[in-house]
Amino acid sequence: MLTPETQLVINLFDDVPARADEEIFTELLSREGVRIERVVSTGQSTPADRPYRQGHDEWVLLLAGSAGLGIEGEGERNLRPGDHLLIPAHQSHWVRWTASNEPTIWLAIHFPSTVK
Amino acid sequence: MLTPETQLVINLFDDVPARADEEIFTELLSREGVRIERVVSTGQSTPADRPYRQGHDEWVLLLAGSAGLGIEGEGERNLRPGDHLLIPAHQSHWVRWTASNEPTIWLAIHFPSTVK
Repeated sequence: MLTPETQLVINLFDDVPARADEEIFTELLSREGVRIERVVSTGQSTPADRPYRQGHDEWVLLLAGSAGLGIEGEGERNLRPGDHLLIPAHQSHWVRWTASNEPTIWLAIHFPSTVK
Repeated sequence: MLTPETQLVINLFDDVPARADEEIFTELLSREGVRIERVVSTGQSTPADRPYRQGHDEWVLLLAGSAGLGIEGEGERNLRPGDHLLIPAHQSHWVRWTASNEPTIWLAIHFPSTVK
């Protein structure tokens, strides 16, 4: 039997607003041990004094648009579609900027860190 | 400290051959409980008598190109970039066709099934 999850083929490039006040998070799959989400940014950035920082590892892939990603102790990287990287648990990171003229679409995979 | 994995930003659309004899599998991340890979197809399909079938769940996202995916008992679906779906463990599936005029790039996330 197929689960309801399987019966939907949803396109990650659909239902993307040209503009929104906040980043939009859409959960695609959630399991114990793995969570997959889409994030749509339309010009937002992370406040310098409020970085993202989490207790698990996160693998991110930029699917559309462009962004600058700052990682503690690593400076900033400019990302284009297809770029991916691992953000280790407990490491502060900031979305420094996202494209202002088109939506930026991220895929984020969350899973437990191997570092205790 | 960053892991070596973090220090590389590799683009999923780079190093894609226009043509290859076989599908090309590149492991992007491997952990206990989750494995992320890129698959590049250049016209290949799965033999009807040798479907893919595995003991874990797999979430796939088509990133570029196009493909027909057959799932046991579900018929065939045509996939375009951005389409994603979950292929449950133990369910036979076939890549019925992939684009012949451009590479087809898949992202596959493998993780344990919740069904025992």
